[in-house]
Formats: sequence, structure tokens, C-alpha cells
Amino acid sequence: MKKLSHFNKKGQARMVDVSGKPLTLREAVATGSVHMKKQTLKLITDKKISKGDVFETARLAGIMSAKRTSDLIPLCHPLAIASVSLDFTINKKNNKIDIEAQVKNTGQTGVEMETLMAVSVAALTIYDMCKAVDRGIVISDIMLMEKRGGKSGVWKR
Amino acid sequence: MKKLSHFNKKGQARMVDVSGKPLTLREAVATGSVHMKKQTLKLITDKKISKGDVFETARLAGIMSAKRTSDLIPLCHPLAIASVSLDFTINKKNNKIDIEAQVKNTGQTGVEMETLMAVSVAALTIYDMCKAVDRGIVISDIMLMEKRGGKSGVWKR
Amino acid sequence: MKKLSHFNKKGQARMVDVSGKPLTLREAVATGSVHMKKQTLKLITDKKISKGDVFETARLAGIMSAKRTSDLIPLCHPLAIASVSLDFTINKKNNKIDIEAQVKNTGQTGVEMETLMAVSVAALTIYDMCKAVDRGIVISDIMLMEKRGGKSGVWKR
Amino acid sequence: MKKLSHFNKKGQARMVDVSGKPLTLREAVATGSVHMKKQTLKLITDKKISKGDVFETARLAGIMSAKRTSDLIPLCHPLAIASVSLDFTINKKNNKIDIEAQVKNTGQTGVEMETLMAVSVAALTIYDMCKAVDRGIVISDIMLMEKRGGKSGVWKR
Amino acid sequence: MKKLSHFNKKGQARMVDVSGKPLTLREAVATGSVHMKKQTLKLITDKKISKGDVFETARLAGIMSAKRTSDLIPLCHPLAIASVSLDFTINKKNNKIDIEAQVKNTGQTGVEMETLMAVSVAALTIYDMCKAVDRGIVISDIMLMEKRGGKSGVWKR
Amino acid sequence: MKKLSHFNKKGQARMVDVSGKPLTLREAVATGSVHMKKQTLKLITDKKISKGDVFETARLAGIMSAKRTSDLIPLCHPLAIASVSLDFTINKKNNKIDIEAQVKNTGQTGVEMETLMAVSVAALTIYDMCKAVDRGIVISDIMLMEKRGGKSGVWKR
Repeated sequence: MKKLSHFNKKGQARMVDVSGKPLTLREAVATGSVHMKKQTLKLITDKKISKGDVFETARLAGIMSAKRTSDLIPLCHPLAIASVSLDFTINKKNNKIDIEAQVKNTGQTGVEMETLMAVSVAALTIYDMCKAVDRGIVISDIMLMEKRGGKSGVWKR
Repeated sequence: MKKLSHFNKKGQARMVDVSGKPLTLREAVATGSVHMKKQTLKLITDKKISKGDVFETARLAGIMSAKRTSDLIPLCHPLAIASVSLDFTINKKNNKIDIEAQVKNTGQTGVEMETLMAVSVAALTIYDMCKAVDRGIVISDIMLMEKRGGKSGVWKR
Repeated sequence: MKKLSHFNKKGQARMVDVSGKPLTLREAVATGSVHMKKQTLKLITDKKISKGDVFETARLAGIMSAKRTSDLIPLCHPLAIASVSLDFTINKKNNKIDIEAQVKNTGQTGVEMETLMAVSVAALTIYDMCKAVDRGIVISDIMLMEKRGGKSGVWKR
Repeated sequence: MKKLSHFNKKGQARMVDVSGKPLTLREAVATGSVHMKKQTLKLITDKKISKGDVFETARLAGIMSAKRTSDLIPLCHPLAIASVSLDFTINKKNNKIDIEAQVKNTGQTGVEMETLMAVSVAALTIYDMCKAVDRGIVISDIMLMEKRGGKSGVWKR
Repeated sequence: MKKLSHFNKKGQARMVDVSGKPLTLREAVATGSVHMKKQTLKLITDKKISKGDVFETARLAGIMSAKRTSDLIPLCHPLAIASVSLDFTINKKNNKIDIEAQVKNTGQTGVEMETLMAVSVAALTIYDMCKAVDRGIVISDIMLMEKRGGKSGVWKR
Repeated sequence: MKKLSHFNKKGQARMVDVSGKPLTLREAVATGSVHMKKQTLKLITDKKISKGDVFETARLAGIMSAKRTSDLIPLCHPLAIASVSLDFTINKKNNKIDIEAQVKNTGQTGVEMETLMAVSVAALTIYDMCKAVDRGIVISDIMLMEKRGGKSGVWKR
């Protein structure tokens, strides 16, 4: 069975050494959902026809947070992110918003954490913009859907 | 029905004006869960008897992220956080770790976002430390449990 | 004649001491302009009817940069900003976009630098989003229009 | 006619994908001016013979801000900057200071934004250091003068 | 005997709760030394008569780092620093530079860590600027000299 | 005799140009010591058998600070750090803790500053966690022990 790679033999936390790895193209996709009251979802969708909207703010927050991932996750490597995009889908039936983020880089390690960070911060931004009307919003199902590139290759949920 | 407070009358995003509000004691509690394979949870709990552990790393990441919240959430106010603490509970029956964060401040606005950020980044840090053995980990049920202080007073889930 | 307050008697840079000052309400307004080709301005205004737009991105960048001012301006005090808002006006006659930012705080020192930073970064963000079609864009007339509060009281251009 | 590259087909903001691009040497030069009262300019130039000076502070602020560009400009890529330098020229005739910044990198995308950021933050730092004696200072003519490298090659104003 | 205050009863790291404490004026002084070769010290002192100098760069780095202390020290509270100043003394006899930093704030907790951070980063900046000629430079004797204000009052070495 | 490389011919501070240099594997080792009272050292070592400990917190602070080095040291290049590790050794005889950090990267310039930063911030974190019981702690002997890679090759103290 495998070990937790972020600890050395003495059980101490460390940043895993990627110095010998080649620069390769890598990509990850992650998703998450924001569950809210029916009326809150309506407020957001009504806003969409106006100039600013909740999704545009959450999208930018998600993109910017992906670039800050190594500042926040202690043992995460700093990466030169090559692209970030986020999509929001309104699920009226289940009163939720589904978020999907995709991040790419050319580097010595992959962008799974950056992609999950983008989803998480986009979800928190939606919470922030709606909390005055709906404090009970729940963020769930933040998970990696797919990753490509690097030694371990393709992984799909 | 209430409006989304982060937009002005013209529908433009803005930071809500809190300049006239008094400095009062505020507090928030939030929770979240990290679902994983039984073997992954075992690796974490086995590690706990060693010197470093996953929870200590996730705790520090959560505390530090609470201090960075206004850097990440676009319309969130910068706050002088007065305390942050995080607790982790192992739920063996459901193969998950439950996270609870509590944040306090004395300020013009509350710490709901800081508390949710602490939970989210602690959860992402657990993911990061376990992803080499379990890419399928799912983060769920990130939500506010309670807040106190400020004009709107006490709120409980 | 007055002295440059950021230098001490020995001519050394320092952060001016505001520790004895009371917490008072302060406010500042600043403006700036982004000059571009007629076609570039048309691309931006056409985009406005779509979901995302250049102004919403520039507005969020301006708001977020105001919160980072003391990280960037070496002798600037960290401040608990209470509100930030930005307005964009299209001036078709002169092929430019006029930016106005307003920042408020309750603190020991004012928000002039935060307001000028918000205008500058909003202008740079417009440049960034248009540079693929118009590298020659010029940012001009970044200036304080008004400030209120603190010992020096009201100042108007 | 070209499109705004920072929006996808659905009109959503995104970080443009540079993952397929080669690492090449890139360079940019940008300029800007800080207009002030004759007496303010005299205070700065008199200070120059002392130990610390306004230009040295503005130069360091400009250099450090270039390194933070992707934290501030939402859709800007993080870059490993290879060099930054800034020059200040006193124009007594027109009571202004002219700033020129030059930035280089070896990367998948260029340093135009980093160079403009360096000029902007250097100009704001001059404002900050002089604002106690001259609140009316105006920052103008921030613009790209030249860029080299990358697929689009050389551009000169 | 006292306990380590950064751990709770369960032995878990936490940010100590200062939410009930009043805002009071606080102040700290810290020092440190940078030991180098005689020739390196000469290069620095010779440079002092020119426009830029090592001390001015180290001073600004120290001031800016004091503002970032809570980003770097995990359990440190974010503070609205009211002033920072740094002094450098050349000790030719012992081939070293002595650094003294003073920080003030009006807050719920003190500025010892900010003052020690300012000294440390100023010392590291001197190292950075001299490392091409003297890699063997040693930073020593970083220590608090004095603190005032808060419940524990005055402390002097 | 060599010159200080961080100044150009006009004596102005600048970021040294590394744009023409190849990406090569580099590595640095640095050390430092934290001197304290016998009772303080005992409190730390007693704590080690509990869940959280001072060393784990200092280790994470050191790792995270290495990633922020170019934000703090004005003329330091941003780097994609490939690994960071820290070791702590208790020296009961001399009532001190010895810290050793090792950093690696594949880049155009080396990681000496990142390694010294990791040691410094780890030492400051130990101070922070112990300052309630021992304000007199002294941090000394922060120095580079070894560096490898790049044009200048191997250097050993």
C-alpha cells in the first residue's frame, strides 16, 4: 500500500521534490455545487440580465484564487498556470448551481489543487454575495473529475 | 423580498459600505466534511501517532487562510481577526473527517466568510496530502452553523 | 515650506507614525482615463450587452487592489477599508473611458492611496483585456478629486 | 476584425490558454509621467543629495509590483520575471518626472502588463511620498513604448 | 510555570483569542547584526555616497515585511501597524552592520513579531545584495530589546 | 575586486538580468539557531509527545515562507521552487534549537535566499510560540552552508 507522500521517513511534513521531473503539459477538471433556497437562485438568475452578475464575480474570484494556490496550501508547489476557465450551470430542479473549473499548465507537477481551489473560492464567492438573503447555503461535492499529463497520466472519476 | 446587497441600484458589484457601523464583538462557526476511502482514513489516523500529522498541517492552513480571506473573496472586507481555531473529528463509520472552524473578531462586519474559508482550505489541504493515494476524495457540506454579534445578531442553523 | 513627511530628520524613509491619531471616518474620490482607438471602444461597448464585460472585470480588479494597497506602496499604512466602488463612463467623442473610484474607511489615516490604486489597477485591467487588439492604449489623468475626514479635513480639486 | 481575447465564445472572462506556447525571451518598455508643482519637484530634487530619496523608494516599489502583477490583474498569467529596471528623469521645464520601466522574461507569454504595473506603482509611490505637500499631483501618459519576442514579435509606438 | 499559549488544552495549535482586549498603544524595539568580510562592508559604505544604497533597500524591505508578518507567522494576528522605522549602524571594528527596528500600533495585541520580522528581512536583504561578493555573511543576535503597552506592560532586555 | 551586482553603473538598484541563463538544477542548504532558557526548551520538548508541536508549526511556516521570498526581498527573482525541507535538532547542552533548511529548484537562478528565508521564518515562528514564556529568545548564526548548481557551481562553508 502507498504512503502519504507529503511526509518523509521521519514522519515530517515536506514539499515533495519535483526538481528532476521534466516540464510537461498537464490539465485538470474539478466540479462542485452550491445549494440554496429557490428564491436565492431566482435572485441570481434575475440579476443575470443586468450588467454585473454573481457568476462573473465568482468566475474572476476562482481564476485569481487558482493563481494563489501555493500561497494557501502549505505543501503545494508554485506553478506557472497557463490557463484557467470556469463554467456555472443553473440546476433549477435541485435549487443549486454547479461549478466546473479547468486549469492547464506546462510544469514539473500538476494542477489538481489549483483546479479544486478555483471551484472552492468560486463557491465561497457565491456564498458571500448571497449571504445577506440566505445564510444557510451549503457547498458540496467539490471533487476532481479528471486529470491528464505527468508520470501518472490520465485519471478519470 | 431582500436584494443581493453586493450590487448597487445600477446592478454593479461593490464592497458594501460598513464605515458607519460600530466595532462590536462577532463570532462564527462553520463545518465541512472530507469523504475518502477507508484505507486513506487509516493512513491518516496511523500517522497521528507520529510527529507531524495531516490534521496539524490542515489546521495551520485553515488558520492562515482565514487571515487571507479578503485577498480572495472580491467583495469581502479586510478584518483584524482576533482568534481562529479548527477541530477535526474522525468518523470511521462513514469514512470521513469532519472539520469545524470558529473565528472571532471585534469589527464593523462579521467573520462568516473567514470561517468558511478556514474550513475550505483545511479540507483542500487534507486533499493535497492524500491525493497521491486517493484522488477521488470529495469535500462536502461546507456550511455556516452559527454566527453571533452585529446588527443581525444571532443566527443558528 | 512643508517637508516630505516620509523622511525623518536624517533623510531616511519611514512609515509616518499615526499611533496617536483617533479613529475617524474618512473618504476619498479619484479619477483617471483610458484612451483607445475608436474600434477598441466599440468592441468594449458591444461586449457590454453580453454576459461578461470589461467593466465588471476592471471594477473587481480595482476593488481588490484597493485592499492590497499597503502591500504595494512601501510607506503606506495597512487599513481596514469600509467600502470601495468604481464607476466607468464611456466618452465616445474622445474615444476614452473615464474611471471614478470612491473609498471609505474608519481609521487613523486616510484612503487617498487606496482610491488612486483602485483607479490605476482598473485602468491597467482594461488595458490587459484590450491589448490583443490595441497595444497603443494610454492611461492618463489619474488624480485625487476630493478627500474628507482626518485632521486636514476636506480637500477638493 | 479581431476579438477581445479574454472572453470565450460565450462571452465569459477567462485566462487565455498559453500552455502550448514555447518558452521564449520577451521584453517590454513602458513609460509614464508624474506632474506636480514646481516647489514639490524642488523638494524631491533637493532630497536627492541626502541618503534616502524618493526615486529609490519608487524604483523598489515598481520592481516589487512587477513581481505581483498576476495577483492584481485578474486574467494575467503568473510569470518568472528575469529582470526589472526603472529610470526616472526630472523634467524641470514641465514640472514633471518621467518614468521608464523595462522588464524581461523567458516564458510562454510576455511582460507588457508587468512593465505597465511597474510604471504605475512607481508613479503612485511618488504621489504617496509627496501627497502631504501636493495633493493635486497628476499621473499621465502611462503607455507601452515597445515590446519584443513571442509570436507577435516586435511592436514599437 | 507558564504554558505555551499557542496550544489549547488538547495540545492543538490555535490563534490566541484577543477579541476581548481593548485597543491600546503598543511599541516594540528589536535588533540584529549582519557579519561580513571587511571588503564587503567597504563596498557597502563606499556605495552610500552614490544615489541608491544597500541600507535604503534593506530599510524598505524591513518596513514592507513588518506589514506582512501575519501572512508569514502562522498564529500571528493581523494588525494595523501605525509606524515602522529602521536604523543601520556600521561597526567597522567588528566588520558588521547593526540593525534596529521600532514598530508601533494601536491594537488588541502587540508588535513584537512585526519588529523582529523587520530586522530579519532587512538583514536578509543585505545578504541578498552582497551575496555575489560574500556568500559567507552571517546574521546573528536577532532579539527583542524592549516592548511597551498591553496588559503585560513594559519589558526591557 | 567584484562589485555589488544589484546596482547598475549609475548606482541604481535593479533586479539582475537572468533572462539569458539556462534552466538548471540548483540546491542550497542553510542553518540557524534559536537560543532560549532551559525551561522554555523543556516546554517545547515536552510538547512533542502531544499532537501538535512547535517544530511542526515552524516547519510549515518555513516551507511557506520560502515560496514567498520574492515578495519580501526586493531584488529577488520569483522562482518555481521544486522542494523544501526543514530539520530541527535540540541541543540541550547549549539550550538551543538548530534549524537546517534545504531548498531545490530547476531555474535560471538559485535558491540561497529561499533557504535563508525558510530558516529565518521558522526561527521567528519558534519565537512567536514561546514568547509568552520567554521574551529574551535570541536567533543567531543564520547562514548559508552549501549551494550547488548554476554558473558558479558548488560553494561550501
